[in-house]
Amino acid sequence: MISWNNLDTVASYKELSNVEKVNLAEVMSGENGGKRVKNYSVPMAAGLAFNYAAKQVDDNVLAVLAKLADEMQLAEKFEALYNGEVINTGEKRLVLHHMTRGQLGEAVVADGGDKRNFYVEQQNKITEFANKVHNGEITNAAGEKFTTVVQIGIGGSDLGPRAMYLALENWAKVNNTFKMEAKFISNVDPDDAAAVLNTIDVEHSLFVLVSKSGTTLETLTNESFVKDALKNAGLDPSKHMVAVTSETSPLAKSDDYLAAFFMDDYIGGRFSSTSAVGGAVLSLAFGPEVFAQFLEGAAEEDKLAANKDLLANPAMLDALIGVYERNVLGYENTAVLPYSQALSRFPAHLQQLDMESNGKSVNRFGEPVDYQTGPVIFGEPGTNGQHSFYQLLHQGTDIVPLQFVGFKNSQMGRDVVIQDSTSQQKLCANVVAQIVAFACGKSDDDRNKYFEGGRPSSIIIGDKLDPKSLGALLSHFENKIMYQGFAWNVNSFDQEGVQLGKVLAKRVLAHETDGALKAYSDLLNI
Amino acid sequence: MISWNNLDTVASYKELSNVEKVNLAEVMSGENGGKRVKNYSVPMAAGLAFNYAAKQVDDNVLAVLAKLADEMQLAEKFEALYNGEVINTGEKRLVLHHMTRGQLGEAVVADGGDKRNFYVEQQNKITEFANKVHNGEITNAAGEKFTTVVQIGIGGSDLGPRAMYLALENWAKVNNTFKMEAKFISNVDPDDAAAVLNTIDVEHSLFVLVSKSGTTLETLTNESFVKDALKNAGLDPSKHMVAVTSETSPLAKSDDYLAAFFMDDYIGGRFSSTSAVGGAVLSLAFGPEVFAQFLEGAAEEDKLAANKDLLANPAMLDALIGVYERNVLGYENTAVLPYSQALSRFPAHLQQLDMESNGKSVNRFGEPVDYQTGPVIFGEPGTNGQHSFYQLLHQGTDIVPLQFVGFKNSQMGRDVVIQDSTSQQKLCANVVAQIVAFACGKSDDDRNKYFEGGRPSSIIIGDKLDPKSLGALLSHFENKIMYQGFAWNVNSFDQEGVQLGKVLAKRVLAHETDGALKAYSDLLNI
Repeated sequence: MISWNNLDTVASYKELSNVEKVNLAEVMSGENGGKRVKNYSVPMAAGLAFNYAAKQVDDNVLAVLAKLADEMQLAEKFEALYNGEVINTGEKRLVLHHMTRGQLGEAVVADGGDKRNFYVEQQNKITEFANKVHNGEITNAAGEKFTTVVQIGIGGSDLGPRAMYLALENWAKVNNTFKMEAKFISNVDPDDAAAVLNTIDVEHSLFVLVSKSGTTLETLTNESFVKDALKNAGLDPSKHMVAVTSETSPLAKSDDYLAAFFMDDYIGGRFSSTSAVGGAVLSLAFGPEVFAQFLEGAAEEDKLAANKDLLANPAMLDALIGVYERNVLGYENTAVLPYSQALSRFPAHLQQLDMESNGKSVNRFGEPVDYQTGPVIFGEPGTNGQHSFYQLLHQGTDIVPLQFVGFKNSQMGRDVVIQDSTSQQKLCANVVAQIVAFACGKSDDDRNKYFEGGRPSSIIIGDKLDPKSLGALLSHFENKIMYQGFAWNVNSFDQEGVQLGKVLAKRVLAHETDGALKAYSDLLNI
Repeated sequence: MISWNNLDTVASYKELSNVEKVNLAEVMSGENGGKRVKNYSVPMAAGLAFNYAAKQVDDNVLAVLAKLADEMQLAEKFEALYNGEVINTGEKRLVLHHMTRGQLGEAVVADGGDKRNFYVEQQNKITEFANKVHNGEITNAAGEKFTTVVQIGIGGSDLGPRAMYLALENWAKVNNTFKMEAKFISNVDPDDAAAVLNTIDVEHSLFVLVSKSGTTLETLTNESFVKDALKNAGLDPSKHMVAVTSETSPLAKSDDYLAAFFMDDYIGGRFSSTSAVGGAVLSLAFGPEVFAQFLEGAAEEDKLAANKDLLANPAMLDALIGVYERNVLGYENTAVLPYSQALSRFPAHLQQLDMESNGKSVNRFGEPVDYQTGPVIFGEPGTNGQHSFYQLLHQGTDIVPLQFVGFKNSQMGRDVVIQDSTSQQKLCANVVAQIVAFACGKSDDDRNKYFEGGRPSSIIIGDKLDPKSLGALLSHFENKIMYQGFAWNVNSFDQEGVQLGKVLAKRVLAHETDGALKAYSDLLNI
C-alpha cells in the first residue's frame, strides 16, 4: 500500500537535518579525495557512470537518504507509475512515457488497447514512412526527394526533439546515417517562421506539425504561416505535411496531412522525446535505426531506475542528493554543464523538464507545502561557460550545485595537437579541473584570489555521445525529476501554472481589458 | 571626493529595509494598475522605454533608492569611470568601453594617446577593410569574394558578438544590408570547430581571430584547427585570417594575418561588443554603417545613464530596483525574457555580463562583504519560455524577478492573421498577459489552479529591434550591471574566479596530479 506523504512528515527527513554536514573541501583533498572518486560512482546504461564524489555527502548522509527512499516508498511509486496507476492525479491520467521505449512491468490497457503495443505501432508507422521518404517512394509533387524536415511545435514538442537533434547531428554525419537536415519553428514571433522559411527550400521540405491537442495556438499559427509559404510557391501543403497528435485531435484524420502519427494523454509534452514527437523528426533526420538505438539506451537506463537499492539506482540517488541540497543545505539553483558542444541545447530541455515538472507550491492533493520544491535550472556547455558565468559559481555569494557531463571521446574524431595535447584532452582536463576547483577551492592571502571551495558537483562520464548514451542520459534526468517529484509529493505531470497567461492573452487580443492589461496593451499598440 | 563604501554602511540602505513593502498584486489591480503602467516609465534612447510598473516598488521605496544613489555617489562613480580613473582596481586598469561609442566626459590619455581617437581609428580601419572585402578589393587567392566570416573567440569574444549578430541577421536581410554570413567557433571541444568547418566553404571564408592577450588557449587551439583545414584545402591561411587583439599581443604584428584591429586592456571581454571585437565581425556581416548605428544607439543610452536624477536614469533605476530585490526582498535569481526570437542568445550574453561582473564575495578592497551580490541570470525568448520554465516562475516556491523585452513590430514584416490577430499581436498580447498574471495572480478554490501573484517584472518596450535600439538595449544592461557593482562596492571589471580552473587544467594536462585530480583524470582517460 503506497502512502503519498509530504517530505516533512517522514522521520528520516528530520534525521537528515541532524546528520553532520560534510566539509567538502576537506574530504576531497589528498588521497581521500582520490578514494571518493573511485568509490562514489554508480554504473549507468550505455557505458555511462554517475559519479557523486564531489557532492556534499558521505556514508552517513547516504544511509539516511536510503532510509528516506524506503520511507517515502520511492521505488514503489515508480512501480505504480509504470504499472499504470493514475499518477497524474490532477488531470486524472496515467503516466506512460517509459512505455514508449520498453515494458518495465505489467501490461497496461487503456483506451481499449495495450499501450505498449500502441506506442510500438506508432513507431513502426513512422519507420515505414521515414524509409519511404528516404528511398524516394514518398516524394514531392515533382517526384523529387525531400531533403529537409521542419518540426513545427513549441515547448515539449520543440525543446527535447531539438536538443536531441543537435546532440546527434554531427555524430550522424560522420557515421553516414544523416538523411535529412532538420529545422524547428516554435515561437509565435512571426520572425521565427519567416527566418526558417528564408533558409530552406520549401519545395523539398517536409513539415511535421506537432500538437497533442491539435489546438496549440502558436503551432496552428505557424502551420498557417508555412501553408501560405507552400501555396505561394505553387505547392500543395497537404503533400508536404505530417501530423503528430492524439487520436482524438482535429488533426488526426484530416486530409491536410500525408500521414498522422499518434501520442496520447499519458505522455506529457516534456516527456515526449521518445514518443512520436521525437520519433518522427529524428527518424526522418537520422533513420529509424538510430532512433531505435536512442530508445534502447533510454530503456536500459529505465531498468536501473527501478532498482530499490539507492546506491545502485543513479536516478534516485541523483534525485535525493538534489533534495538534500535543496531542502537541508538550502541551495536554490542547479547548473547543468555538459562538456560537449553537441549538448548545447540539452540544458534548455532540462530546464523545461525540471522546472515545469517540479516548480509547484502544492502537493498532489492541492495542499500548500512547507518546503522548497523544484530548483531553477540553467546551463551552457563547457568550456564556454568557464569564460562566462563560472566566475559567480566560483566566487559568488550563493552556492549553486553543479551537474557536469563529459565524454572521453569526441563525436567527429577530428582533432589537433597543441602544446602536447588534443582539444578533446583539453576539454576533459578542464572539466576535471573545474570539479576539483569547485570542491576544494584555494586559499590565498589576496582575498580577491581566494576560492572558498565547498561547491558541490556530480559528473556523468561516458565514452562517447551517441544515440544509445544520449537515450540513457535523457532517461536519467527524466527519472531523477520524477523521483524528486515523489519526494516533494507534488504532481510532476501537470502544468496548471501556464493557464492564467493563456486566458489573459486571449482577453488582450479580444480587447476585453481594463487597468494594467489595457495600459500595457496601449504601450504595445495591440 | 568619492568614497567607496560597502552597501551596508550607508544610512539609506538601513532605511530601505524599513520602508513598508509594496503589495504588488494589490497596487497592480484595477484602475490604479493602469495608472502605474502610465507613470512608472522612463524614456530610453532609440524610442525604447523602461517600464517598472510591475516592480515591487512605490514612491516611498523609490525615494529611498534615490537617497541611496546619492549617498553611494553612483553618478559620480560613473563620471569618474568615463573620465579615466582606475576603476578596475584589482588589475589597475581604466574602464573605457563607453569610449568605443562616444565621449561622455573629458579626454582620456593613456598608452601615449587619446583613447577616444584610438577606438575611432580602429573602427575606421575596420570600415576600410570591410568595404574592400565587400567591393572585392580584398579577395581570396582566386580573386573571388569572401562570402562568410567566422569569428574564433570565447567568452566575451563570442557571446556578445554572436548575440548581436543573431539579433540583426534577419533585420539586415530584409533591409538589404546583409553582406556576409557569420559563424562562430568558441568551444575547445573539437566537435565545435569540426562542425562549423563542415558547414562552410573555407575557400570563400574569412576568419576573425579574437584574443586580447593573444594567449587564450581555446582560441589558439581553434586557430590551429582552422589553419589545418585551410592548408588541407590548398589555401594560404594568412590570406584568410584577421586578428582582433591588443597592440602588445604576439598576434599584433604578425604576417599570419591579413590585418590586425586593436582593442586594449581598458575594454573587458564581456564589455567588448562595441569595440573591434564586435566591430570586425558585425561590420563584415552587415556593413560598417549598420555597426555605426549600433554604436549610436549605445552612445545615446550612455548619456541617459550619466543622469544624476534616478527617475530619469533607466540604467541606475533598473540597477537599484535589482539591489532592492536582491538585498531587501531576498530574491536570488533574475530571468531575462525577450519576446523576440532575434534575441535568442541575448540572455546568454547578459548571463556572462552580469554573473562574471558581479559574482563576487569581496569588495573592491578585497574584504569579504556581508550581503548578497550578483544574482544568477538565465532566460529564453518568449513565447517559447511560457511553454517551458514559466510554470516554476508562476507557481514555484521561490520568487524570481523578471526582465521582459518587447517590440511593437516584427523585424521581417511577414505575418499571418489567425483568429483575427497577427502573430506579432499574439506575441505582444502574451507578454502583456504574463506581466499582469505574474503581478496580480488569480485566486481559485482549487489550490492547484491558484496563482499567488506578487511576482515582480519590468519591461523594456520598443518599436522594432534594429541596430540602434539593439545598441541602446546593450548599453542599458552594461550600465545597469556597472551601477549594481558600484552599489555592492565590488570590482565588476576583473574575473579572478576563472583563474584556478585554468591552473588546475594545466596540471592535469601535464599529468602533475594526485588524489581527486588524478582519479578523475583516470576516469576520463586523460
